[in-house]
Amino acid sequence: MKIALAQMNYLIGDFEGNRQKILDAVSRAVREHANLVVFSELSVCGYPPLDLLEREDFIHDCGKSVSAIAGCIDPDVGVLLGSPEFNPGKQGKMLFNSAFFLRGGKVRQVFRKSLLPNYDIFDEYRYFEPNKTFRLLEFGGRRIAVTICEDLWDEQPFERSFSRSRLYTVNPLETLSRQQPDLVINLAASPYAHRKQEVKQSIFTRKAETYGLPVIYCNQAGAQTELIFEGGSMAVNSRGKVIRRLAFFREDFTVIDLEELESADPEPAAEPVPERMKMVSEALICGIRDYFQKLGFRHATLGLSGGIDSAVTLVLASRALGPENMHVLLMPSPYSSAHSVDDSIQLADNLGIRYSILPIDHLFRLFRETLQPLFGDLPEDTTEENIQARIRSILLMALSNKAGHILLNTSNKSETAVGYGTLYGDMSGGLSVLGDVYKTDVYELARSLNNPVEIIPRNILTKPPSAELKPDQKDMDSLPPYEILDGILEAYIERQLSPREVIALGYDKDLVIKIIRMVDQNEYKRYQTPPILRISSKAFGAGRRIPLAAKY
Amino acid sequence: MKIALAQMNYLIGDFEGNRQKILDAVSRAVREHANLVVFSELSVCGYPPLDLLEREDFIHDCGKSVSAIAGCIDPDVGVLLGSPEFNPGKQGKMLFNSAFFLRGGKVRQVFRKSLLPNYDIFDEYRYFEPNKTFRLLEFGGRRIAVTICEDLWDEQPFERSFSRSRLYTVNPLETLSRQQPDLVINLAASPYAHRKQEVKQSIFTRKAETYGLPVIYCNQAGAQTELIFEGGSMAVNSRGKVIRRLAFFREDFTVIDLEELESADPEPAAEPVPERMKMVSEALICGIRDYFQKLGFRHATLGLSGGIDSAVTLVLASRALGPENMHVLLMPSPYSSAHSVDDSIQLADNLGIRYSILPIDHLFRLFRETLQPLFGDLPEDTTEENIQARIRSILLMALSNKAGHILLNTSNKSETAVGYGTLYGDMSGGLSVLGDVYKTDVYELARSLNNPVEIIPRNILTKPPSAELKPDQKDMDSLPPYEILDGILEAYIERQLSPREVIALGYDKDLVIKIIRMVDQNEYKRYQTPPILRISSKAFGAGRRIPLAAKY
Repeated sequence: MKIALAQMNYLIGDFEGNRQKILDAVSRAVREHANLVVFSELSVCGYPPLDLLEREDFIHDCGKSVSAIAGCIDPDVGVLLGSPEFNPGKQGKMLFNSAFFLRGGKVRQVFRKSLLPNYDIFDEYRYFEPNKTFRLLEFGGRRIAVTICEDLWDEQPFERSFSRSRLYTVNPLETLSRQQPDLVINLAASPYAHRKQEVKQSIFTRKAETYGLPVIYCNQAGAQTELIFEGGSMAVNSRGKVIRRLAFFREDFTVIDLEELESADPEPAAEPVPERMKMVSEALICGIRDYFQKLGFRHATLGLSGGIDSAVTLVLASRALGPENMHVLLMPSPYSSAHSVDDSIQLADNLGIRYSILPIDHLFRLFRETLQPLFGDLPEDTTEENIQARIRSILLMALSNKAGHILLNTSNKSETAVGYGTLYGDMSGGLSVLGDVYKTDVYELARSLNNPVEIIPRNILTKPPSAELKPDQKDMDSLPPYEILDGILEAYIERQLSPREVIALGYDKDLVIKIIRMVDQNEYKRYQTPPILRISSKAFGAGRRIPLAAKY
Repeated sequence: MKIALAQMNYLIGDFEGNRQKILDAVSRAVREHANLVVFSELSVCGYPPLDLLEREDFIHDCGKSVSAIAGCIDPDVGVLLGSPEFNPGKQGKMLFNSAFFLRGGKVRQVFRKSLLPNYDIFDEYRYFEPNKTFRLLEFGGRRIAVTICEDLWDEQPFERSFSRSRLYTVNPLETLSRQQPDLVINLAASPYAHRKQEVKQSIFTRKAETYGLPVIYCNQAGAQTELIFEGGSMAVNSRGKVIRRLAFFREDFTVIDLEELESADPEPAAEPVPERMKMVSEALICGIRDYFQKLGFRHATLGLSGGIDSAVTLVLASRALGPENMHVLLMPSPYSSAHSVDDSIQLADNLGIRYSILPIDHLFRLFRETLQPLFGDLPEDTTEENIQARIRSILLMALSNKAGHILLNTSNKSETAVGYGTLYGDMSGGLSVLGDVYKTDVYELARSLNNPVEIIPRNILTKPPSAELKPDQKDMDSLPPYEILDGILEAYIERQLSPREVIALGYDKDLVIKIIRMVDQNEYKRYQTPPILRISSKAFGAGRRIPLAAKY
């Protein structure tokens, strides 16, 4: 039996476009003599459709699209694709998250998702009723256990056993295994998290080993606003070896011969997963590219400060969009150092990117004069720093508005966490590229991007970080070294440790309390940040919901 | 039997403060000879704690607070209060949403929530396991059915039967009624929605009638960031009559004699619910007041444009915070009309509020000169309008930063819906006061606030709405009359009708398509708006989750 794995990048709600992709992949599978074609979870509409699922017309359009696809495909090929489905029962949530088996012009069988993730960025209980009945797909002489994404994640090890150890009361594959399947298929929409790749792979290899069954896993590829689906679909044989792996972060297609999958001896190994920083940069490039493409934009701008964050953002954006589609602004203030402008020019020239220099001294002066009747002789404070950041935002947004560019935000996760940024100033933008990358990882990313060819001038990597908003300002004047800061932040944000537990890791008590207070007090700023490309298991944004007005 | 209803305003996570409120209310109840004191849902920590529920230390602190309260109260009085509780079972979500019955220094019995709302702003399945076992509380010779909020909402009529008609598979009160209770108690945290007050009341009166049981309902009072809990706790007798109602939007306390509740003949009527606009203004004043109080701020600023939105916002804020705590800016541009400044001054004087006039002509001119090398002879467009709005935002934020004011956002729901506003300009602020109030309701609100004494100058109510960002601009140049716009928006946003269904209501087809496209294309702006005080059943913000990069 030959199974085609069609790893696609869908646009949410674009029924015509998604249908065409699916039909093209089925045609190719038929040409390559596949018997069955597998697509990812909710492939008909794209994942995650969020509250579009609450619209009756949206669900009807999903149904129409499934029928249209069934009617167009070759009569001999079987197709497994994902779509929401009205709950035909008399009780419970309105929908099921389902996999449809199509053949001979019709929907032949439907498989429904049992384990509905409702944590972090997932809200599947908002829309879906969990499945409670289990049946195999019998096709081409095989008995197939069809599962949907989380259905295989009944026992995944999470770093904080506290919160997940006993989450699910059902084990779908255990139940299905009693019906003697020959094979497991998993339709998935599983987003990327840079420290979770091994865990994810082990889900599939362990299930294969435990049940002695091959596992075919088809994931969605491409970014949906902040979520980056990495693809990386796999075929795992019944001994738990990954024999085939599809591309990361882009569409891919392969046909797997089940006999070969099992018989190969010695087993051919799948391509190894690239190292972490290579994966992170691919993820972010994918995130930028798809955000622009899916919104119908081509051009980007950003403010190039001479610092590491805007430099890394620029390199990533240039790779995602092409240097010819970027126009950046250098906006020195009275406190900018000369090398900031020189380094920025060097970087833009290295990349072949158009830049303009718009000094902001005179605007800064005029704002201060305008505010003089209000402020009188009050001493300078962060107000004046914020004014500079906001002037730059006006200039960038003016270019963005006039020329149809999207402004890219260049804040990193460390400064976003502690509120080291100006709302409506450097926190502006249509998309935050590095908002889920800690400063220490921004440096690692820069070194990775500079290999093998130096693109980011060395000086940008070596000088001490500074916002340059007052004379001789350095980040380290008000923050601990980034290695320490990031360690504390990661423990508090990703691992959700209590202050006491963070201190127990060996950090200075007063410092931990100070940093955690900064994180908590800046929820209000993060409430208004742009969507942040998510590369970790806990990013700022929809997956992290902290009350603004609280005392804890 | 005498039952005290303690309707309190909690600060989320402020265990000490919340505990003190609870103990004070218990002491008062004992003084007034109550046998049982009832608090609202999750009263120990305040509702909604959101992802603080994922922190182990937070749940431990809840448990400690419950024990501490149990240990402090008079040995003869019974107390029912709400707290999250670790799930002691081996499977399922980590927590239960529980009501604890305290007496004689100890927790005597625990009741768990069965129906977990997971729609709109609610995400209770994110944290809680649903209860499946049902037992009455026996106390003081009574058999009491203890329920938590949604537990009584198993069959509520929603306008869109499509999405809710069969939501729950369990009816807790039906199950409990088989155990012959004498009385129903409901611990609730139910937020205000201006067109849902009658529906809400009918939940309790219908349950009382159906089961022939008195219903005692204790709701949370006060705002938690965008959610405004209206209080309005009630005692309903077994004939379904509301005999007692507590205050709206503030703390209140009463002791109910169960015998009197039933015996009164003729029945004394509870105070009627105030008319809609009176309730809306009370809700918004509560929302502003609590946001400031709970964040520890006292002072507010805003930009007074001479239009109706900023005028209404100012009146509400002045009532919430006191006129002495406000300082507003008038920032005329080259396109501002003379009457805009005059009307604004008149309004500020009527309220006794400090104002400063900072014209922005010269700043606008300097930005245009600065951008001249980039823009050359390109024609004026919305870019120049946005620059003006953003200059104002810089000035307002400068005052906010320097003086510790929170900037209040003055955008209404109609313009927020169609994207008629400038990101980082007039869409800035720490809190949006009118972002859930359609323009037609802003006018109604203004008339309500002007009764009996005219505070908002008549000219502000009668002149045609204009952003005054280019010569002779009027809202109606690019938008239909607000009566029509708001009708279309309400059908699309609140009622989630499809474009075809909105057209079927009698609106012009092309107009509907144009308006809906404007709503959809501006999701990206709303992603970055401040928290919006919620007064409707579907506000922009956490309760409405639409993909940014989508085509539908």
